Order: sequence, then structure tokens, then C-alpha cells
Amino acid sequence: MAGSRDYDPGPQIAHAAGINLGTPDLERSLKFYRDLLGMEVTAQSDGVAYLRGYQELTHHSLVLTQQAQAQVNTYSFRVRRPEDVELFHKQLTESDVEVLELPAGHETGRGTAIRFLIPGGEHPVELYYDIDKPLAPEELRSKLPTNSSRRRGWGVRRLDHLNVQTGPSTVNQAEGWLREALGFKRREYIMVPQAPQTVMASWLSVTHQSHDIAIGISPDETNGRFHHVAFNIENYSDVLRIADELKDIDIEFGAGPGKHGIGQAMYLYIHDPGSGHRVELYSGGYQIMDPDFPEIEWTPLEAEYGQTWYGNVLDVGPGAKFLETTPSAGLRA
Amino acid sequence: MAGSRDYDPGPQIAHAAGINLGTPDLERSLKFYRDLLGMEVTAQSDGVAYLRGYQELTHHSLVLTQQAQAQVNTYSFRVRRPEDVELFHKQLTESDVEVLELPAGHETGRGTAIRFLIPGGEHPVELYYDIDKPLAPEELRSKLPTNSSRRRGWGVRRLDHLNVQTGPSTVNQAEGWLREALGFKRREYIMVPQAPQTVMASWLSVTHQSHDIAIGISPDETNGRFHHVAFNIENYSDVLRIADELKDIDIEFGAGPGKHGIGQAMYLYIHDPGSGHRVELYSGGYQIMDPDFPEIEWTPLEAEYGQTWYGNVLDVGPGAKFLETTPSAGLRA
Amino acid sequence: MAGSRDYDPGPQIAHAAGINLGTPDLERSLKFYRDLLGMEVTAQSDGVAYLRGYQELTHHSLVLTQQAQAQVNTYSFRVRRPEDVELFHKQLTESDVEVLELPAGHETGRGTAIRFLIPGGEHPVELYYDIDKPLAPEELRSKLPTNSSRRRGWGVRRLDHLNVQTGPSTVNQAEGWLREALGFKRREYIMVPQAPQTVMASWLSVTHQSHDIAIGISPDETNGRFHHVAFNIENYSDVLRIADELKDIDIEFGAGPGKHGIGQAMYLYIHDPGSGHRVELYSGGYQIMDPDFPEIEWTPLEAEYGQTWYGNVLDVGPGAKFLETTPSAGLRA
Amino acid sequence: MAGSRDYDPGPQIAHAAGINLGTPDLERSLKFYRDLLGMEVTAQSDGVAYLRGYQELTHHSLVLTQQAQAQVNTYSFRVRRPEDVELFHKQLTESDVEVLELPAGHETGRGTAIRFLIPGGEHPVELYYDIDKPLAPEELRSKLPTNSSRRRGWGVRRLDHLNVQTGPSTVNQAEGWLREALGFKRREYIMVPQAPQTVMASWLSVTHQSHDIAIGISPDETNGRFHHVAFNIENYSDVLRIADELKDIDIEFGAGPGKHGIGQAMYLYIHDPGSGHRVELYSGGYQIMDPDFPEIEWTPLEAEYGQTWYGNVLDVGPGAKFLETTPSAGLRA
Repeated sequence: MAGSRDYDPGPQIAHAAGINLGTPDLERSLKFYRDLLGMEVTAQSDGVAYLRGYQELTHHSLVLTQQAQAQVNTYSFRVRRPEDVELFHKQLTESDVEVLELPAGHETGRGTAIRFLIPGGEHPVELYYDIDKPLAPEELRSKLPTNSSRRRGWGVRRLDHLNVQTGPSTVNQAEGWLREALGFKRREYIMVPQAPQTVMASWLSVTHQSHDIAIGISPDETNGRFHHVAFNIENYSDVLRIADELKDIDIEFGAGPGKHGIGQAMYLYIHDPGSGHRVELYSGGYQIMDPDFPEIEWTPLEAEYGQTWYGNVLDVGPGAKFLETTPSAGLRA
Repeated sequence: MAGSRDYDPGPQIAHAAGINLGTPDLERSLKFYRDLLGMEVTAQSDGVAYLRGYQELTHHSLVLTQQAQAQVNTYSFRVRRPEDVELFHKQLTESDVEVLELPAGHETGRGTAIRFLIPGGEHPVELYYDIDKPLAPEELRSKLPTNSSRRRGWGVRRLDHLNVQTGPSTVNQAEGWLREALGFKRREYIMVPQAPQTVMASWLSVTHQSHDIAIGISPDETNGRFHHVAFNIENYSDVLRIADELKDIDIEFGAGPGKHGIGQAMYLYIHDPGSGHRVELYSGGYQIMDPDFPEIEWTPLEAEYGQTWYGNVLDVGPGAKFLETTPSAGLRA
Repeated sequence: MAGSRDYDPGPQIAHAAGINLGTPDLERSLKFYRDLLGMEVTAQSDGVAYLRGYQELTHHSLVLTQQAQAQVNTYSFRVRRPEDVELFHKQLTESDVEVLELPAGHETGRGTAIRFLIPGGEHPVELYYDIDKPLAPEELRSKLPTNSSRRRGWGVRRLDHLNVQTGPSTVNQAEGWLREALGFKRREYIMVPQAPQTVMASWLSVTHQSHDIAIGISPDETNGRFHHVAFNIENYSDVLRIADELKDIDIEFGAGPGKHGIGQAMYLYIHDPGSGHRVELYSGGYQIMDPDFPEIEWTPLEAEYGQTWYGNVLDVGPGAKFLETTPSAGLRA
Repeated sequence: MAGSRDYDPGPQIAHAAGINLGTPDLERSLKFYRDLLGMEVTAQSDGVAYLRGYQELTHHSLVLTQQAQAQVNTYSFRVRRPEDVELFHKQLTESDVEVLELPAGHETGRGTAIRFLIPGGEHPVELYYDIDKPLAPEELRSKLPTNSSRRRGWGVRRLDHLNVQTGPSTVNQAEGWLREALGFKRREYIMVPQAPQTVMASWLSVTHQSHDIAIGISPDETNGRFHHVAFNIENYSDVLRIADELKDIDIEFGAGPGKHGIGQAMYLYIHDPGSGHRVELYSGGYQIMDPDFPEIEWTPLEAEYGQTWYGNVLDVGPGAKFLETTPSAGLRA
């Protein structure tokens, strides 16, 4: 078929599939993700625990690592085909990005992976394809074969998206690189009012979601910042129930509940009490079916209801607590 | 890059994008879709009306055609790239499927398309890429740029999926053809208990949805049957509100509300009072992120809760009203 | 003030306040009410456990008694004023109803009470006024002073209503006695189609609720039958979440979820796995503010949607499992 | 029966039953209450419209009067027995409160009433018992006999409660008078931090509700101020849907959605666009069954989550827009 080479899409990202959070208090973090959020612990040893949501058939999406510093060790994406790990490796090397090869089992249950830093962002990213799909223990198993375990606790279904930040002088580079090198599409974005060539925040996806990853400006001009990881919850009514129960216990409540205009999903931001990392509980949102869905720019004026369509208003002014972030590890940390 | 031709995915379906319903009473059908379901009429003339949900930026997903017979005139899928229309045309012709070429404007707002019958199923399918994205009239426009209009009425967001049937002697052929020729992946399925080589029902998708199209056995052994078109609703609480309001008005109520085990979404089946075609109001469901998501087989025993996880039980025994279907048009009808 | 004696309302029932369930497997029953339904155990000793919902400030509404037979030991109502216990005692004795006096502490935390059998119904009823209002242990306490404990598990707020049955030859007597002697108002009712002078079911209240107690015909013509106790849940979305979680565990599911036309509340019927007694999880409903709210008769034809406005249809035909009941104890049992 | 005179409860309020709102733009107000909130207009003539919610069988709870000033003409309560109008009249006169007698039909569909000003508050209050219960026109009627019409629009069920304010020097007098003369019970309250003998806000009821009327300090030290009237909505999910639709249209949005700690109900405050009067859409809340339910004091520290348990925070600081009020008419206005 003439011209068919043009159609080769090259290696592709499938979805945001994992995060490895360093926590100074693994037990407290575990209580949060396992007992409150209802995630299943699929493996645990030597200060490392692996967890998944009840609609993840794969081995894990969350790794908790006991360590002194509350930092993000890695952000993981799964690729679409087995060969895409190797193809991305080749592409990255050709464009002078340093790549580490990780053997199978580097994370329990996962096959070989590669690791590199996002140019500009300096966030440590891992790409992999192979991952085990273990059955849950009998007593946790669901009758629904599309659920890996029964819905429990606050009902985390799966990792939904990642939200990171980098300094204003590198944000355009990092955001552009995610689009050009990794193939993310820019779905919605805001430019800095005083510097309209600079991205303030950009929501990017390769899936039906408004964002698999969002990247924005770090207010303190440092790179490699982590804002939050979002876990998907089935119903917006669950988000309200969680808010109700959360107010009555000793967990730091961030912003929400409310509904974003950007992405159109319900949100609730809370903090892992073991590490302080910010977690978003996220439900709903519009879904992108349209292959030529337009890039949507939000003007600063519109961005107010873009941030908060209704509900608890996000605190995003100067010095706002909502803007506080945690750091990421380096390539070899 | 050696071997890159292997990666050519060929032409691809993007999503289930339209249906053209013949209705003997256009005015009554319009009242149903426009005034109750809250869809926007983007064009209307000569006995044909074009409608879309409030999260469809494209010109329309539903066409209502005034005509004597309550049949489905066409089922439409959008392809992923502009060239895919032509590439599918070529593939179909090479495999001896008769193809009609339709000029731009054949459906208002759409570009060129091709039409053919599913081998075995005999359902008339159209494929297209180009479609206008008109702004709604000022008074209907939303402040949210990802919505084409304000949410109104019962809040249909978009066409979600199509459900069709064909005779038991052709169902394997049709279901296999959807997978091999159009690239749909089989997500969940049930085999006929007494004839375990024959597909009873199969849910197929190219998107994150459990199904963009489902195909099953027609109990009366005829081909080209239409079971329902599903429209997506934001929240499961909306499905209950609709049930509440529906019980009090003169609309034929089918089955629901309830939650399917297969697909894990809330359902409510009702009938377009102008044509009698079945419409499913559908909300939620698990989402497929996993590039090697397994095919899930439901045994006859499990299929009971697969059909109805909770809520109003689907009436699927012999002679059940829920199994009644409407016909599809032929290739040139 | 002349004529003021006419206004003396006499002793009054305040609300349905308790039930004492005999269970052959106290541990299993406890797991159900405490761990799944989220009720607080306020006292436990010698095979008797006392529980309350998170919006009950009083000591308990549910008593679980370890005993061989799965029967209802007593149904309790709280009276409006301290002196009403004595006034009811006098009235009952004057009308030849045998009354037992129960000392304070007969049920832990409660003051003196009287016990008698409903004439015709033969259900053992207790009336009391005084009851302790203990604080929950620190670790269960809510920041909301109108909640006795934090909302946990499936979130039972309080006992809502009682539903009992008696034989067709005594149902009119029992239902009339509840109205005349105890002051309940008939809110909604259905007469037996083939015997239109006989009450088939009647919903009665002294509060804003459509019913604090319902009484209907026992299909097997025995008296003193118990159909269910309903516990109030905050939101109808909680009822759906419970249905979701319930389907996946080893609890006998009765009918629901659905919405009643009579009472207009969401329902879900399940069975205490320790005793088999039927429990309704109940949310919403219209509220009676109107002091001359009319008695509403449902004809047999209307009663179909009176039973199930939407959702899982109640199975109320001949031999229906939904009609199975458990017995009540006698006056001195 | 000795001592029975002690039990005479005297005349009693049944519930908050009506409000007469003066509006400079009746047509615009009507569009709001009838077309958006879904209330039924039961009578209209000479610049006065009468409306009710879909679960009010009585003639009306809302009167809209075309007039120059956006003030509250009257607040109405229904009494428990027919003779209570006359008994309250006598009591009021004996305690030197000036009373106007209003003939039947003064408000269409209502019987005789009395009007007076709350001592201290100066709010014009009407008490009545008799009121028609007209059937809705056939095309609006519900199959549910406990609904006066079908649920439509945003689904107002009934008037829920009234919220008024008066100056700090009279608030204790007015609040005490509501309790002593009209029999309201204080359910929850906050005292002024700097003047702990002065009521800041008090929530009072005679029903199962946490408040039928709330009264608080007017920040501008004037009496007779109106803060809001609350209409009851069936589900908290409806409140969120309304917020969603409201953001997209030209209606002034006040505070919410969110959940109050005091009362434990979902709230959304909006403004009648014809008059500017504040309306609360209100759903849920705990229910008082307990005849000796304690008075709950909220300390200033607790009052923060008392105002907003979760969701959009009420803006109650100095100069806050949420504190703006509209005036009430005088006794003969």
C-alpha cells in the first residue's frame, strides 16, 4: 500500500499508569491508601508497598517507598505495544536524552522499563509495557470480572492523572516536549497573563480524558515539582460522602469538594498523612471521542470558573497553600 | 526505521458517531429528543432534523427522518484520520464488500462518506471523517467551551454506543468482521449455552468504553435488527431523576433503572414515542486504559448479574418485550 | 381559659424508637449491624448488645439478644412526655389490655417502661420516655454535635419505622387500635381487592414521616408477624452504593434498590445474616407538614406503582419470598 | 383525670407555610419560580400570583405581589387546629400585641387569618388554618397522590423555612418571644463572641426540622430584615445539578453549593432576578424525633464548620455580600 509508512504512528503512550511516592511514614501512608481509600496491597516487602485500585487488573499503580524524604521517586506511563519501550529508548537516545534501563522486577510485577528526566521539567519518568495481572486473594475478589477486587472504603478505581510543575523559564520546553516526543495532545491551557507566550498550565492527554498529565508553572521557579496524583472515583456522590467522613477525622483537607470547569470533573484534594503529598479524588469529566478535538484556551477571566465551576473555590492567589508542592527525585535517586 | 511498516495500524474507527432514525412522526420524535432529552437541533429541513448532545462539538449525532417506516436508515462511525475513509473504501472493495460513495452534504454538515452493509449483519454503516463544528445560537451557548450548548432537560451529553442484532447463523460472521475488518476489540461476551460456538452477545470497542457497538442474536433469526442506541448522561443520579419524571408522563418505559454488571453502567431503556425505537440512557461504566485488556467471557450463570447487577431486572426470557427490535434499511433504501 | 380541657391531647407517641431482635448468632448479627451498617455498640453483656445510628443521641434503638429463636422480642415507641408512660398505662388498663411494668434498666440505659400486646396484632410493644444520652468514645465522636458518632460503614442514621403483619381476621382491629388507642394517623392504605372492607396494608404515623409503623395482612393468617425494621440512610446515592457492595459479599439480598410510590422513599431490603430478620435501608420520602393531611387510598391498580415507582420490582404475588416473615414473642417471653 | 389541664398545649404552630414577596418585576420573578424552580401557579390576577411546590397539596406557599419595593409583605405560619387562630388572637391581645383580622380570601384560597408584628423583630407574621387543596390541571397532575403536580424544572417540593434578622438590641427579645409566645424550640444557636449574652443566630422549630425559622443579628442594626426563604429539594444531587445549570444562565448566584454543619443540609443560595430576594435551595438535614432533643450551642470556633461543613464557604465576614438583606413591610403596609 503506497504511502503506508506515513501512517506509522511510532511508539505511543497508553496512559498514566503509576507513581512511586517516597514517604517518611510508610505505615501511616498505608493506612491512608489501603484503609481509607480502599486500595488493595498486592505486594509488600523491605519498606516498599505496591497498591492498585479496584478497577485496575494490573499489578499496581501506586508504589509507597519508606524513605527520609517525601519526594516523588518516579512517574510511570504504560506504552501501547511491547516494542514501544525499545522504540522510545531509541528515540530518546537519538535526541540526547539520557536513559536508564531497568530490568524486569525493578518494580515488583513489572517487566523491563526505561527511565529518563523530562527535558525542562526534570521529572523522572518511567515507561514500560509488561506488567502482571494477579488475581486478588479470594476474600477480596469481586464477582465482576472487570474489577480486580471488591469496591471497599472510599472506592478508588484507578490512577487517573498526574499533575506536575516546573519553573517559568522551562515550562514551555517541558510542555512542548511532552507533546512532540511523547505524543500527548494539548487539550486545555492557560497562558501567563503578564507573559502571554508562556504556558501557565496545560492539560494533556493521549486518552479520552481531558488530561493524563497536567503541567504548570512552579511559583517558586524550581523544576521537578509535584502537585498531585489523582485517583478516579466512580460517582460524584462518593466525593461528597468522602468529604463528609473526612471532615470528622484527622486528615489534612486541601480544597474541595467542587467541580472544575476545565475537565468538568468533581474534585477533592487531600494530603497523604504519612508523606504530605497531595492526592486528588476525582470523578466524572467530559470524554474526548473526537479525533480532531480542538485545543481550548482559557483566558485569565474565564480561568476563574475554569478552576472552580462550583463548590469550594481553589485558593490559587499569591502565597496560596494550594500551590505548595513536593519535590521529585533525580534520575538516579 | 526497520520494520516500521509493521506498526502501520491501517485505517481506524474513532468512535460510534451517529444514527439516522426513520420515524413516522417526526414532530413527536423531535419533542422527545429536543424537549425531554435536551438535545440541540442544529439543522432542520424537508422532513429531516439534525441533533447533538451538549458535549458534542460536531454538527450532529442523531438524524431524524420523517418516513413511513420506523427503521434505522444508517449507523455512522467516525474514522480517526481524513485518509481513513478512502483507505477503508479500498479495503472493503478488495474484500468484495459493495460500497456506496456519498458526497459531502449527504448529511448536512458532514463531508464525504462511504456506506456498506456489515457482512452477516446487513446493517447499513457509514464511515466519515469531516464534520462541521458549528457554534450553538448565543442563547443556548455554554460558558464552558468544552460544551457545545448549555445542559438542559434530561441532559444528553453525546451518543454513546449502538446495539444491533442479527440471526444466529450469521452472528459469528458479523461479529468477527467487526473485529477483523473494522478493528473493534471484543471486550465482554456471552456464548449461546446450547451452542457454545455461537456468540449470543458481544460488546466491542475501539475506545475506552466497554462497547462502542454491541452485537447479539436476533431471536427471530432475521438480520439487520436494531436493539437500541445509547445516549450518555453525566451522572447516575440523573438517570434516577429521569426515571422519576418519566413515570409521570406518557412515554413508554422499557427496563430500568438499574446497573449492568457487563460494562458497569447505569441504564434506563425508553422508547421514542414518534417511532418506537428503543433508546438507552446510560451513565458511568468502567474505563479501559489497559492496552492488553483481556476478553471477558460471561458464563450463562454469571450472565444473570452481568445483565442486572442491581435495579430493575432486564426481561430477557423467551418472548420478552425487551428483545423486540426494529429493522434497518438496506444499502440503497 | 374556657374549654381548654378539650385541647388536652392526652398521652402521645413521639416516634418508633426501638426493636429487640432475637438472634441465634449474635456475633454474625453484630458484624452486620456494627461493621457493615456502621452502628455504634453502646453496651454489651450477657448475650445482649445495644446499638444506635450515628444521628441517635439516645442510648440505643436496636437490641440484639442471643437466643435460640429468631423472633422479635419487643417493638418500642418513645412517648412525648415523661407522664405519658403512666397515662398510657392507665388508659390501657381501663380498656382491659394487660400491661407489664418494667423497671428502669430493664433495657440498659432506659427508664421505666410498660409492655403489652397490640389487640388483634399480638405484637409485644413497649412504651418509655426516659433514656440516657451517652457520649460516644472519643475516637468515634463527631465534630457535629447533632451526630452521636462519626458516619461510618453504610451509614445508618437512625431507626426509621417498623413493619408488622397480622391475620386477615384481626388486621382491622389491630390497625384501628393503633389509631384510636395510640393516636397514629392513617397516611396511606390499600384495601383487599376481594374484601374491600379489610385493610390489606396501612401506613401510619404520628410524625412527619409517611409511616412510623405499617401493618398489613399476614398471608399465612398468623398474628404477631414481623416483616421488617427500616433504618434511615442519609442519601439515596448511599442506597445504591450499598447495593453495589452488597452484591459482592455473602449477605442475602431481598428486594431493591428501588423507589416506593407509597412514601416516595428509596428502599433496599436485606437480611441480617445472624437471624434472617428483614432489614430495610430507607432514604428520603415526602414529609408531612400539613396538619390535615388526607388519608390516601391506593386502588389495587395504582398499588403496583405504589409498591415500586421505579427500580427492582417487589415480589408480592402468591408465594413470594418478599412476604416471608419472622414471629414475635408473647407478652412474657 | 386529675391534672389534665397541665397537658393542654394551648394553640400551636404547625409549620412555616408561606411568604408574600413584593417584587418590582413580577414577570421576571414568575419565570424564576415557575419556569426554573418548577413551581405551579395555582392562581393569578391583578398583579398577584400564587404558587406551590409539587409536594404541597395546599393552595400556595408563595405569593408574588407586583409592587415598587422589593420587600417581604408577610411571613405565614399554619396553626395546628382550626381554633388555634382564635386562641392565638386572644393570647396576643392579652399580651398587648396589636392584631389585624384578615377575612377569608385575603389571600386567595386561604381562610381567615390574623396578622401582627413580632415584638422586637417587627416582621409581619400571619397565622391561619384553613386553606384550599385544589387539584392541579390534568396535564400537570402526578400519578402519585401525595404530589400535587408532577416534578418539573429544578424540583421545588415545598417551602422549608424562613430566615430573618433584627438589630442586636432587640434580637434577644424577638428570639425569646418566638419561643415563649409561639412555642418554637431553640435547636441550635450561636452567641455573639464579644457579647456572650446576645444571640447571634438561633435556629428554631416546632417540627422535625432543625429550623422552621431562624433569626439572627442584622449587621446594620435595623429591624424587620429578611435574609432568605428556603425551598426544599428532594436530593442533594439535585442541588448540584441546579448549580451546574445556574452557572450557565443569567441568575445571580450567592453562596454554595455546600453542606451546613448546623442543620446538616445541602445549600445553594440564589437571588430571585425580579426582586433580588435571596432564596435557598435546601436538601436533607438531620431530623428531630427526640422529644427532649437538647439545645445545641456552637462556639465561635466551631461555628466555622457549622456554617460550612464542606463546599463553597459562606462569606460572613464584615461587609460580606452574604449578609445583605431586604426589608419587611409594616403591619398595615
